[in-house]
Amino acid sequence: MLATLGRCLPPGLMLYCYLLGAAGAYVMKQAHGFTRRSFLARIARTGGAAAAFAALDALGGASLAWGEDRVYRGPPALPGGLGKGKRVTILGAGVAGLTAAFELGKAGFACTVLEARHRPGGRSWTIRGGDRFEQADGVQQARWPKAAHLYLNPGPARISHHHRAVLGYCREFGVPLEIMMNDNRAAWLQDDQAFGGKPVQARQVLGDSHGYFGELLGKAVATGRLDQELSGEDRERLLAAIATFGDLQRDGRYTGTPRSGYSATPAPGLPHGTVRAPLPLSELLRADFWQFKAAFGEDFDQAGTMLQPVGGMDRFPAAFARRLGHAIRYDTLVDEIRKTANGARVVCHHGGARSVIDSDYVICTLPLSVLRDIPNDFAPAYREAIAEVEYARSAKTAFYAPRRFWEQDEGIYGGLSWTSRDVTQILYPSHGIGQADGVLVGSYCFGAFPGDDMGQYPLAERIEKALAAGEAIHPGYRTMVRGGVNIAWPKVPHSLGSWAEWKPEQFDTVYRLLQQPDGVMYFAGEYLGYLSSWQEGAVLSAHHAIEQLAARVRA
Amino acid sequence: MLATLGRCLPPGLMLYCYLLGAAGAYVMKQAHGFTRRSFLARIARTGGAAAAFAALDALGGASLAWGEDRVYRGPPALPGGLGKGKRVTILGAGVAGLTAAFELGKAGFACTVLEARHRPGGRSWTIRGGDRFEQADGVQQARWPKAAHLYLNPGPARISHHHRAVLGYCREFGVPLEIMMNDNRAAWLQDDQAFGGKPVQARQVLGDSHGYFGELLGKAVATGRLDQELSGEDRERLLAAIATFGDLQRDGRYTGTPRSGYSATPAPGLPHGTVRAPLPLSELLRADFWQFKAAFGEDFDQAGTMLQPVGGMDRFPAAFARRLGHAIRYDTLVDEIRKTANGARVVCHHGGARSVIDSDYVICTLPLSVLRDIPNDFAPAYREAIAEVEYARSAKTAFYAPRRFWEQDEGIYGGLSWTSRDVTQILYPSHGIGQADGVLVGSYCFGAFPGDDMGQYPLAERIEKALAAGEAIHPGYRTMVRGGVNIAWPKVPHSLGSWAEWKPEQFDTVYRLLQQPDGVMYFAGEYLGYLSSWQEGAVLSAHHAIEQLAARVRA
Ligand SMILES: Cc1cc2nc3c(=O)[nH]c(=O)nc-3n(C[C@H](O)[C@H](O)[C@H](O)COP(=O)(O)OP(=O)(O)OC[C@H]3O[C@@H](n4cnc5c(N)ncnc54)[C@H](O)[C@@H]3O)c2cc1C
Ligand SMILES: Cc1cc2nc3c(=O)[nH]c(=O)nc-3n(C[C@H](O)[C@H](O)[C@H](O)COP(=O)(O)OP(=O)(O)OC[C@H]3O[C@@H](n4cnc5c(N)ncnc54)[C@H](O)[C@@H]3O)c2cc1C
Repeated sequence: MLATLGRCLPPGLMLYCYLLGAAGAYVMKQAHGFTRRSFLARIARTGGAAAAFAALDALGGASLAWGEDRVYRGPPALPGGLGKGKRVTILGAGVAGLTAAFELGKAGFACTVLEARHRPGGRSWTIRGGDRFEQADGVQQARWPKAAHLYLNPGPARISHHHRAVLGYCREFGVPLEIMMNDNRAAWLQDDQAFGGKPVQARQVLGDSHGYFGELLGKAVATGRLDQELSGEDRERLLAAIATFGDLQRDGRYTGTPRSGYSATPAPGLPHGTVRAPLPLSELLRADFWQFKAAFGEDFDQAGTMLQPVGGMDRFPAAFARRLGHAIRYDTLVDEIRKTANGARVVCHHGGARSVIDSDYVICTLPLSVLRDIPNDFAPAYREAIAEVEYARSAKTAFYAPRRFWEQDEGIYGGLSWTSRDVTQILYPSHGIGQADGVLVGSYCFGAFPGDDMGQYPLAERIEKALAAGEAIHPGYRTMVRGGVNIAWPKVPHSLGSWAEWKPEQFDTVYRLLQQPDGVMYFAGEYLGYLSSWQEGAVLSAHHAIEQLAARVRA
Repeated sequence: MLATLGRCLPPGLMLYCYLLGAAGAYVMKQAHGFTRRSFLARIARTGGAAAAFAALDALGGASLAWGEDRVYRGPPALPGGLGKGKRVTILGAGVAGLTAAFELGKAGFACTVLEARHRPGGRSWTIRGGDRFEQADGVQQARWPKAAHLYLNPGPARISHHHRAVLGYCREFGVPLEIMMNDNRAAWLQDDQAFGGKPVQARQVLGDSHGYFGELLGKAVATGRLDQELSGEDRERLLAAIATFGDLQRDGRYTGTPRSGYSATPAPGLPHGTVRAPLPLSELLRADFWQFKAAFGEDFDQAGTMLQPVGGMDRFPAAFARRLGHAIRYDTLVDEIRKTANGARVVCHHGGARSVIDSDYVICTLPLSVLRDIPNDFAPAYREAIAEVEYARSAKTAFYAPRRFWEQDEGIYGGLSWTSRDVTQILYPSHGIGQADGVLVGSYCFGAFPGDDMGQYPLAERIEKALAAGEAIHPGYRTMVRGGVNIAWPKVPHSLGSWAEWKPEQFDTVYRLLQQPDGVMYFAGEYLGYLSSWQEGAVLSAHHAIEQLAARVRA
């Protein structure tokens, strides 16, 4: 079957079909179009970049994942006086720029950080009650009360336990962290094309799938149909293991499991419960759950334990910024990036005031989506490279809920629900648990299909889509949430996209090139981290840049 | 195979073998003996009571699980003045007694709660730095600093998201909750008999098992060996689903997955990572991981999201106690429970002072392990019932670690590791994340084998066992932890055991009987909840008792 498919489809599509639904036509029903890029972007966001790179391997591309067995030995140890008398201009006070400025400063470099926004952090940003913010389609305001637990992280919201560089700085700076629940058995999966569009609880999807997988495998093993593949000893042990894995009956049948929850409302006193009847296998397979959603919690980048800074993600860049003080010039836009005989010249303006800043080195951390339109003296290969990289178009919606109905009515504490619509996810806050009110993420689209479109719609329509999708999962949603805001990253000034969406073939060309300085100009930022779309990548890219810079100064 | 096994083994053992390892001899290697009871107890603690009840079903016993679809409508709504002029003596200020007193008090009953300890909560207890406590084998002290994040919950540590009665009171009382990570892909599984005794990361056990299960099932499906069992459409979709489930290659092979982590230490700059080589299937199956441990996080009672009160579990009973004030008499031991012409008489003492308390009703929430030795007038059937129920013998060890090595060195934030030894688990705190120091649970034995023994050993030996097991998982453990304490519940005064270990056949006899009052004497407590061993059961048992009592007063 696979071989046959393999002959009639291009390899990327073939892999896609196999991974995301061998019955290609079925899975494609929702796809607005398909390219290897968007497939990889999709996997990158869901399976995490690590999965994308594994997929790249399968496609014959480069393998770029960076694993947790890597021994992170802390930031580069630069000699104390190394930077004496050297000036470095750092473009951008996002996580990459802040990291570079902090570490270079320790080594005695005189750093100036130019930042267009009035705050540090760039994409690492938190919106709180009352905050106003602007994007290409207008000004919005977070119409909810000011309170510590009422915030939205419109960009990064998660830190993995293996993001050791980020976690190392959090420890060094004393940024308090708490657990961010990513994978919650009480949350929902909803597909308009399956189960009559009704949401199904995650525990049921997993419990029943594992039950059926185990039953079928057990049947094949117990009746000798896998005798060629397994030794006798392994067969017996495998049967035992899958009995636990699938929670099977003693005869090997799957007839339901408490793991999937209960259907009966038992009487008090001597209560009897009835384990839910298993969902029909055909319908489970027809739904989009196993596209990737049901395995999301196993992904290297998404698996527990995930963490978040207490009080909002911007606490992380704020901790850097406090240590950098006046080295950061806010509300200062870079207009030109030039090479000079002995170094670099950056032209910028602050309000009406234009400045020219000369320095020995520049570290540029502006997103490529922004950088490509800033007049510069980069070598042609760099200009081409910068122009070529595409950015994902993720968007997030948030709503204020006066009552935490997801907790009080449904027992959902953190985690996320999935929908087949372009709204993609609803995220429940892992903070403020047990409070009366809360802010939830009403949509989070990855910038791959079907979420691709979200940012294109007018603001009101984006909010409406999020309301409609929420209603399909939580009846009464429209009456329970209000104050919707939507951040569409392609429309956010100074970002113009969510993260670099690498094409496999670019890793050996563009990606490799930008890892090298162009003269005295060094590049750093999320797009050069081993993982795009993670703060950890931004931090490590800065470490890499300053290591190269330090090596040159030393030489 | 199953049929053959079935003929040579008694049904309980047969089910056990199938569930816990069909190659019975292998699994039994560690068993010190086996009874249906201990099997059920084991499942009850691991699969949760729900699984035990499902197992009971398979054994032909009663099904007693109480599910999350149950609509919990809050505590019984008793008419405001119902209790006017009625006195109720409540024995024990554990969660059950506190619940009963609080609800009856709202309805106007005059309640007196007699409590042997100097604090409320009973088994729901928190030990903090400096605390001293006594058990049959002596006095211990928690030799670690006083700080909000340095505590041990020697009894209950987890609240499930579907424990709606407990969560309802937490909300009503404003007890702050936070996420308790129960299932952490970064933690370890260690079996002395497999992998040379080396610990294996949970992500590897799950990633690789799912990979192999998927590959084998895919082989059977793709080569037509399950054509009888599946329609053509389902076959194609199933192949797609298991490709995601197992993270398989395009040819259906399992060759490793980023979900299992990485082996290579990549160079900075253009880092390459190497996905870990899959663990050998035979060794994975030989290990005790699939006995139940690898599926622990899917269990109805253990699946995310789990919660804990901020600052320690005793914050929950303390919130009741604050509302009850002087209704609770601490340091007051019940000595006799008598029936009188119009009600009940309880004899107790406080220090040297003996009191006699007459009332209309008694609600007895003492553990049966304690109650059976208190002189009483219960009807013979009740006395027999009370004498018959056995109690589990769980024990917990805690250590103080001046450095949170599990976080800093291994990226473990909360969750638990498993060992094949009687130490069973190591639990990492979900609180105080990122702090310098911490208190971890160095052993938690369920009271079924192999943990059965723990409490039998002298204190020093229990601590030593926990140290040795920790060393096998975390090299250097002995030098990194100190100040060990061990709570062996059979030795804890006023508890004498951890929880009721029901035998299946007792549900229709003893369990049913004790749900009914003996004259004016009502029973409540963990052992009468739909789940033994959960606070939720203790709360609901109290609701049940007061509903019956109210019905009688009304009549
Ligand atoms: C929706 C979304 C979800 C994400 N989720 C996660 C997550 O869960 N976890 C995680 O770790 N990461 C996540 N990320 C990725 C993370 O946000 C980035 O990897 C990281 O913040 C990028 O840092 P940076 O310094 O490279 O870029 P930026 O943060 O973009 O910093 C660039 C800086 O340059 C400034 N700038 C731009 N133009 C100019 C100019 N002309 N002059 C002066 N300054 C200028 C910008 O204002 C900005 O401050 C997410 C990102 C998005 C968008
Ligand atoms: C090791 C362990 C782990 C557990 N884990 C969890 C968990 O993670 N989550 C969860 O929800 N539950 C858990 N439980 C179960 C939970 O602790 C119980 O279900 C619950 O606390 C029992 O409440 P109770 O009121 O029935 O009994 P108790 O708490 O035992 O209350 C009985 C009270 O009676 C008092 N008493 C005894 N004798 C006398 C006397 N002679 N005179 C006067 N008073 C007397 C005792 O001091 C005590 O306060 C665990 C229990 C143990 C032991």
